[in-house]
Amino acid sequence: MAVEVRELFMEQLRRIKSYEEAVGVLYWDLRTGAPRKGVPQRSQTIGMLQTEAFKLTIADEMGEWLEQLSKPDTYGALTEVEQRSVEIMRRRYERSRKIPSDMFQEYVILTSEAESVWEEAKQESDFTRFQPYLEKIVDYNRKFTELWGYEDHPYDALLDDYDPGMTVRKLDELFGRVREQLVPLVQQVKDSRISPDVSFLKQPFPKEKQRAFSEYIVKQIGYDMAAGRIDETEHPFATGLNVGDVRITTRFKPDDLTFSLFSTIHECGHALYEQNIAEELNGTLLAEGASYGIHESQSRFWEIFVGMSRPFWQRYMSELREYFPEQLGDVSVDAFYQAINKAEPSLIRIEADELTYNLHIMIRYEIEKQLISGQIEVKDLPQIWNDKYEEYLGVRPSRDAEGVLQDVHWAGGSFGYFPSYSLGNMYAAQICATMKRELRDYTALIERGELGPIKDWLAERIYRHGSMMRPEQFIAQVTGEELDSRYLIEHLKEKFSELHEL
Amino acid sequence: MAVEVRELFMEQLRRIKSYEEAVGVLYWDLRTGAPRKGVPQRSQTIGMLQTEAFKLTIADEMGEWLEQLSKPDTYGALTEVEQRSVEIMRRRYERSRKIPSDMFQEYVILTSEAESVWEEAKQESDFTRFQPYLEKIVDYNRKFTELWGYEDHPYDALLDDYDPGMTVRKLDELFGRVREQLVPLVQQVKDSRISPDVSFLKQPFPKEKQRAFSEYIVKQIGYDMAAGRIDETEHPFATGLNVGDVRITTRFKPDDLTFSLFSTIHECGHALYEQNIAEELNGTLLAEGASYGIHESQSRFWEIFVGMSRPFWQRYMSELREYFPEQLGDVSVDAFYQAINKAEPSLIRIEADELTYNLHIMIRYEIEKQLISGQIEVKDLPQIWNDKYEEYLGVRPSRDAEGVLQDVHWAGGSFGYFPSYSLGNMYAAQICATMKRELRDYTALIERGELGPIKDWLAERIYRHGSMMRPEQFIAQVTGEELDSRYLIEHLKEKFSELHEL
Repeated sequence: MAVEVRELFMEQLRRIKSYEEAVGVLYWDLRTGAPRKGVPQRSQTIGMLQTEAFKLTIADEMGEWLEQLSKPDTYGALTEVEQRSVEIMRRRYERSRKIPSDMFQEYVILTSEAESVWEEAKQESDFTRFQPYLEKIVDYNRKFTELWGYEDHPYDALLDDYDPGMTVRKLDELFGRVREQLVPLVQQVKDSRISPDVSFLKQPFPKEKQRAFSEYIVKQIGYDMAAGRIDETEHPFATGLNVGDVRITTRFKPDDLTFSLFSTIHECGHALYEQNIAEELNGTLLAEGASYGIHESQSRFWEIFVGMSRPFWQRYMSELREYFPEQLGDVSVDAFYQAINKAEPSLIRIEADELTYNLHIMIRYEIEKQLISGQIEVKDLPQIWNDKYEEYLGVRPSRDAEGVLQDVHWAGGSFGYFPSYSLGNMYAAQICATMKRELRDYTALIERGELGPIKDWLAERIYRHGSMMRPEQFIAQVTGEELDSRYLIEHLKEKFSELHEL
Repeated sequence: MAVEVRELFMEQLRRIKSYEEAVGVLYWDLRTGAPRKGVPQRSQTIGMLQTEAFKLTIADEMGEWLEQLSKPDTYGALTEVEQRSVEIMRRRYERSRKIPSDMFQEYVILTSEAESVWEEAKQESDFTRFQPYLEKIVDYNRKFTELWGYEDHPYDALLDDYDPGMTVRKLDELFGRVREQLVPLVQQVKDSRISPDVSFLKQPFPKEKQRAFSEYIVKQIGYDMAAGRIDETEHPFATGLNVGDVRITTRFKPDDLTFSLFSTIHECGHALYEQNIAEELNGTLLAEGASYGIHESQSRFWEIFVGMSRPFWQRYMSELREYFPEQLGDVSVDAFYQAINKAEPSLIRIEADELTYNLHIMIRYEIEKQLISGQIEVKDLPQIWNDKYEEYLGVRPSRDAEGVLQDVHWAGGSFGYFPSYSLGNMYAAQICATMKRELRDYTALIERGELGPIKDWLAERIYRHGSMMRPEQFIAQVTGEELDSRYLIEHLKEKFSELHEL
């Protein structure tokens, strides 16, 4: 009996994963060139597939299987993959069952409308248009936190969707230390009078050559073209359809070398993770990253810790010059390294440099936390937002389009998502510190363009495990300690002190 | 109650159609560049989606709904779309339920293996390797005909899958007249001593220019690029995902102008059909062609009756010369028209010209019919095949790879498919004759490149109706009479008599 249940259960999870894969292909297709007129019907089809998968998730049958498989004796006899599948599925089942289906339907419609309204409001820089929608979305999220439950802070219930186990208490501590050290560092950098020339990065760079160089670099990093492909989209993304099919997209700006180059490396980092998940997890719910934060750590590791490092360009600058002799023929490694790392407080998160980026995230985190706990109200957001930008970054938006309206996340209801971006940076710095201890010639490997051992180390320690472990357990296993933001702080201090001769 | 059943039923059909759309996108993706390593898992996902759709089709619930909706009072109160949906679904339900699921599973595995074996057998030109598989496939198809039932001839039960209502009795008559007239005509053409120069069609034609000209031509014909896209694949195809998303593919041969040009026009003909199905049918099971034969008539109409006609090149030859001045600068309209219509008996169906093509089909039809009725046996096929080629076309294969092993259809179990190709030609000729009566300036429109009225006529008479009518009813409504092969015969006689001064 138990054996049969276990097979039925795992088979059902494979079915759910197959729905997710199909939906993934359909979304990829929509974003990479599906004809405009087919979109309404395609959206119906995507909705149908998602609904079918959701029905399987919340079925009574699923509840019964989970109960049976969770009994100590039965659970103990399961394989590790099965045990972890039970854990992950139970969480999904319980959270999904706690939201009444009417409420969920209303919320899906609300956020879908809100995204359109947000787009218009941003266009016209008019927060008041978006405000009533955001108020409702915040209300729903407050209700969700009550339905899901939490120990200390209602926002914990939302964080759990993106980084299971992450809490306000932990984040306050992690971010607190970052803010304490970063705000003065940003000020020092601003005052340092070293302001690198970046003009050579903004010249005409033929798209075809940009594409060729990007492809060359991702292959150097270890992206497997037989298990992926590169396309162009408005907003770059990576999508893991299955372990043998992990695609990335990029956008080539004709007058900007670095946008596509570093966004391609970023997405390639996400893709390396999923291409290297163990084959035995392929087709199961465990064939994904351990959390949003850990996933982001891999994109940021390759983008920043490797791609924006000096040794990397000591190796690849001469080749970059060969691709663009007219534009970069007389640019030195140092000049290039300084230019791509120019740091300066700014208003727009997605254009922010490595140093100031975490302050953008922190502002959003603090606002989300207080919105969900009811300490602040939606109507006051523009004022709060602008004040915080002034306090942390020393810049103040003059229009809401450049301020509180800049990101789509809240319109889509993604409360709890933003912290993953900074968690990614923290995880990446900590993992990088471990790697440097274990791969003694880490810097020399990058200088020689021998990136294989670095990828292999990550594959062995991180990638192949998929979501076999909870993030906190995982980071402890990989680095020997719990997440600590001091690695990120040390990295930023060291890098930017050197760059700005502080 | 009846209202509710009717809604549940139509909703379920939309769900089945959505599964088909998703599977369609996944197949398109596999053929246009999905990474190799993702294929095994993707195949699992496709299999899952097909199985889910099939389960809905054969569910007891579906049987109950069909029974209720078929009661005269209830049926009479349905809309035309609902009535036709009941008809089509009942046929699917009944045919699917009649095959025991074990038998169906075995057959799916058999044909999947047989396709691989056929590939190897063709490579080595060794029919005996393929023979045991083909014997089993024929046996299964004989069993299917008994399970499905038929009035006169068992092959009728198979034909019904491709052109509902088509029978051996009708085909024997249609093909009989074609053979009677065509075999001597082919001989006359062969003896005519007029053999056009085709050497200028086989020169280097840069792929990018071929692509540009093909795109120009399909837009002239009326292909809507906002409801479609053109990609490259090994074997060209068209796929209607929904009414607003009908894609075509082509293959550019670097030394051959006509392959991609006419295959693109052919696929574009299929696509025009599906792009112009009435919006109210979008997402229903009726959003497809009326039958394989009628679908093929639209690809052949545009490819042959328009694209390979003299007036078409009177209009477009000068532009073709502008795309390829070096290759075609001194080629006249007449020389081009003669070259693209060169007719000559040959061994390979897919390379055959318009005149001899139908004889290739007829040979396959006669063989299939006798295989299914048991009049001939699989082991004798090579001999029978070669004899028929000698009799009808005056050529004899020296190897089975160029003979009985050339097509994949039988390995895939598609008995009853081949006749659609010739039915397509017959339908096209008959429809074209009607159009010429109704659009008095038909030829002048083509000469002026005003293809809009032609497309509109077809959209109004044929395309918008999707599969609202059975093929026989449909052709009678469009042309005022039942299908008659004399239109095709007249067309071929007229065209090739003129070309060969007979």
